[in-house]
Amino acid sequence: MIRFYSPDIESSMSLPASESQHCCRVLRMSAGDEIEVTDGKGYLYRCEITDANPKDTALEILEKREEPRHWLPRITIAVAPTKNIDRMEWLVEKSVEIGVDRIVFLDCHNSVRRVAKTERFERVMISAMKQSLKSRIPEFTGVIPFKEFIDSDGSEFRYMGYCDPEVERREFARVYHGGDLSLLIGPEGDFTREEVEYAIAGGFIPVTFGNVRLRTETAALYALCAAHTILTQID
Amino acid sequence: MIRFYSPDIESSMSLPASESQHCCRVLRMSAGDEIEVTDGKGYLYRCEITDANPKDTALEILEKREEPRHWLPRITIAVAPTKNIDRMEWLVEKSVEIGVDRIVFLDCHNSVRRVAKTERFERVMISAMKQSLKSRIPEFTGVIPFKEFIDSDGSEFRYMGYCDPEVERREFARVYHGGDLSLLIGPEGDFTREEVEYAIAGGFIPVTFGNVRLRTETAALYALCAAHTILTQID
Repeated sequence: MIRFYSPDIESSMSLPASESQHCCRVLRMSAGDEIEVTDGKGYLYRCEITDANPKDTALEILEKREEPRHWLPRITIAVAPTKNIDRMEWLVEKSVEIGVDRIVFLDCHNSVRRVAKTERFERVMISAMKQSLKSRIPEFTGVIPFKEFIDSDGSEFRYMGYCDPEVERREFARVYHGGDLSLLIGPEGDFTREEVEYAIAGGFIPVTFGNVRLRTETAALYALCAAHTILTQID
Repeated sequence: MIRFYSPDIESSMSLPASESQHCCRVLRMSAGDEIEVTDGKGYLYRCEITDANPKDTALEILEKREEPRHWLPRITIAVAPTKNIDRMEWLVEKSVEIGVDRIVFLDCHNSVRRVAKTERFERVMISAMKQSLKSRIPEFTGVIPFKEFIDSDGSEFRYMGYCDPEVERREFARVYHGGDLSLLIGPEGDFTREEVEYAIAGGFIPVTFGNVRLRTETAALYALCAAHTILTQID
């Protein structure tokens, strides 16, 4: 069944305009058809179309249920956006498919990009959520200052991917054994030594992800996959 | 140091035309400058430019060394290419960055694409190898029939990601413990039951990669990251 998104379904009893268009124009669904709707907050609604209006499709809710979480710990990835914004769009799409709870874009000293349009990434997240049959949209902060993230992050387990071999680092796959997790990935020009020291003082442990050099977005996705791999081992 | 690619450096003693152009025109390097060159077969050459010809840069080899492998088992990913070829290009790029030895494109019953230009993917692999400072280009088969791959694959450990919940599946992260590995990922329309049975008869074990539904290219990359995560745990 195709999944639709309606963030306020219980008050609106309808699909938003773009979803209505897709449902009634593209898929040619009509009154009486059943569809599945998520609110992006973890709930799934089995609905019947009562008015197949392609601008405002009216629904009757037949059933509401909370979808169980596919993974238990809360996972944050914090990454300095790359100059090429398509690479970040890709990262956000893949992260939502694989599973993430919060995406933080960081403004670091060596950041090559300090703005990112929130609406664009929200669209990517909604699309990836629907496509991968999930029902929760991750929290997305937009770009925030590096120190603000370090000061406010409350994850029990905090790791920082960092390239400078002079800093002692442990292998992520050997040190993480489950629990709420933050994964901090540096900009294309890497963290400054001051940022590394600030993060370490803030409880972040420098780690490596294998022995290879990865681009920013590859490192972030690899770290997320490694975390899920470990979580399925201990499940 | 920037890494250049010259597959026949020992006989040609020069860079190919596209690399010569990049070296002498874009980067404005000149005679006497030192560069690092890989042959894509695991060797690194420290070279001095003797003639900065932007069509055929002549080199003197100062030092040759074999680069150690970053991972020991031989890793194959076999995947049915997606309709959108950009998604395959992305998969090939990321796989080379993360580490793969062989990439097989499969022609399955439900394949939506049965051709893929080899030269295009070779360019992507060369670029990703240089960018991630590697010195080995993976073997790339182009599109081959599903059964030909199953019949010829000689990896000690063979796993098949497959969606049908009626087939008994194990969690990949719990069953793989190192060794030469093949990861088989189905097309967007999934494997047929006949293909699943053929692969099982050929020694492929059905597995899942977590509980989530992933696109073809995401599943392939996730599987590769999971394999490397496990390899760094047992290293």
